[in-house]
Amino acid sequence: MRRSQRIAAITKWLVERPYQVVSLTEFAERFNAAKSTLSEDLAIIRETFAELEIGKIQTLPGATGGVRYIPELTIQEISRRIAAICEKLEGAQRILPGGFIYLNDLLASPMAIAEIGEVFATKFASSNPEYVVTVETSGIPIALMTARSLNIPLVVVNRINRPADGPVLTMNYLSGSSRQLQTMSLSRRALPKDSRVLIIDDFMKAGGTLRGLTDLMGEFECEVVGTGVLIETTEPKEKLISDYVSFILLRVNEEEQKIYVEQAKWIKDLTAVDANSNL
Amino acid sequence: MRRSQRIAAITKWLVERPYQVVSLTEFAERFNAAKSTLSEDLAIIRETFAELEIGKIQTLPGATGGVRYIPELTIQEISRRIAAICEKLEGAQRILPGGFIYLNDLLASPMAIAEIGEVFATKFASSNPEYVVTVETSGIPIALMTARSLNIPLVVVNRINRPADGPVLTMNYLSGSSRQLQTMSLSRRALPKDSRVLIIDDFMKAGGTLRGLTDLMGEFECEVVGTGVLIETTEPKEKLISDYVSFILLRVNEEEQKIYVEQAKWIKDLTAVDANSNL
Repeated sequence: MRRSQRIAAITKWLVERPYQVVSLTEFAERFNAAKSTLSEDLAIIRETFAELEIGKIQTLPGATGGVRYIPELTIQEISRRIAAICEKLEGAQRILPGGFIYLNDLLASPMAIAEIGEVFATKFASSNPEYVVTVETSGIPIALMTARSLNIPLVVVNRINRPADGPVLTMNYLSGSSRQLQTMSLSRRALPKDSRVLIIDDFMKAGGTLRGLTDLMGEFECEVVGTGVLIETTEPKEKLISDYVSFILLRVNEEEQKIYVEQAKWIKDLTAVDANSNL
Repeated sequence: MRRSQRIAAITKWLVERPYQVVSLTEFAERFNAAKSTLSEDLAIIRETFAELEIGKIQTLPGATGGVRYIPELTIQEISRRIAAICEKLEGAQRILPGGFIYLNDLLASPMAIAEIGEVFATKFASSNPEYVVTVETSGIPIALMTARSLNIPLVVVNRINRPADGPVLTMNYLSGSSRQLQTMSLSRRALPKDSRVLIIDDFMKAGGTLRGLTDLMGEFECEVVGTGVLIETTEPKEKLISDYVSFILLRVNEEEQKIYVEQAKWIKDLTAVDANSNL
């Protein structure tokens, strides 16, 4: 195999396996090449990714070391992707009776969801989560793609008890917006004690569901190291959780039948800082 | 940019966007290189992928033409991936009261689910589906990854009516195994009339849910061009649908508290044929 061929094959292998460490020895066997040659190949891929800002190729030293791909986005790229979703949100008739927002089309495109997964992974990677946790149903796609980008398992909390879950831990919680008592349950064996979990959901009004998920994690003796939600409504102002990150703010004007969306302040701030630093 | 750098960047771009056609002009602008140079780069990537059997780089001629990556697996690779899942299935205590099988751990690994998505995409690509359809909840991850590999939208049918769905079409159906009346509903605007849909689910006993989904597609005036299910139980023998593809057969022996699994016959047959043709 020539260098350019090895680079095509290695790039595909790494990009398809975010965060998975592979040793040089393994690559050497797979591509029948010397380790020194592969080091040079990897250096080229690393430089290219760095130059184009399309992710990071990281080398880990030591006996358990090797190389891995980290889908790390720049804040500009995060802002670009969130802006694209904002545009889609504004472009359609989405207001339903009761001020609910139709989002199914937004969550239907696997490519868009994969892009959001990378955004979430970039934002929460430094908290070193071991599991992504979400509640059925609409949060599952984003949570799965986030888990994929971080290469950690996905745990789905159910709203109804299913026989195939086995023994479950069930909890009642109060939905923040409708003030109704709701139930969530999770398989006893789904989540080991002392795990570091990242809670992900697509949409948040008062935050009752996220509050419930956080409490449920307490029952499992797990530590919530991050909570991310794609879209947050401006109303109600008082939320039932405090420690979370949202990416899009959404305001509904039912009289005008219009919704207004904008990127979260932290994204605006970071892109502004970054823009300044380029001056 | 040198050739090896361009190849790293182009490979990443293509692999992350299965089935998405990109014109040479677009690549030329993106990488600031001549089209003839890029043609040579793409030829190297195409040859490498073909040689290693890790997918297909396809060139489409004409004004709307360009190049795209198709995550097409060999039957050997399909068999290898399905065998790996069989091994996981056999390796743990999974039998729950009522003969239900615990599968949540299997569906928790995003990497494994992504691999299954490519298996399903390879199997059903030739039917040219326009949408992947599944019913909440456990089928969603596989369905999403299949949709991602085919680059088509995912449509999730709900078991309960959610306010954020807007107007829905609701249908009752009879669960095949428990003989209970169940409900499924789908947003009126989720699926355009005359769409070609691929139905995907993770698990099938008698096939009542898949029968219900098929009927629901009829109500939406859509054509079911394929039905794929990862795991099928050997009992009951009589299924409520006939035209489907399963990948794993599972037999439960409740007395022994054991499950027995094997690859579907079509996979065994194809790998056998292929093995012969190599003689």
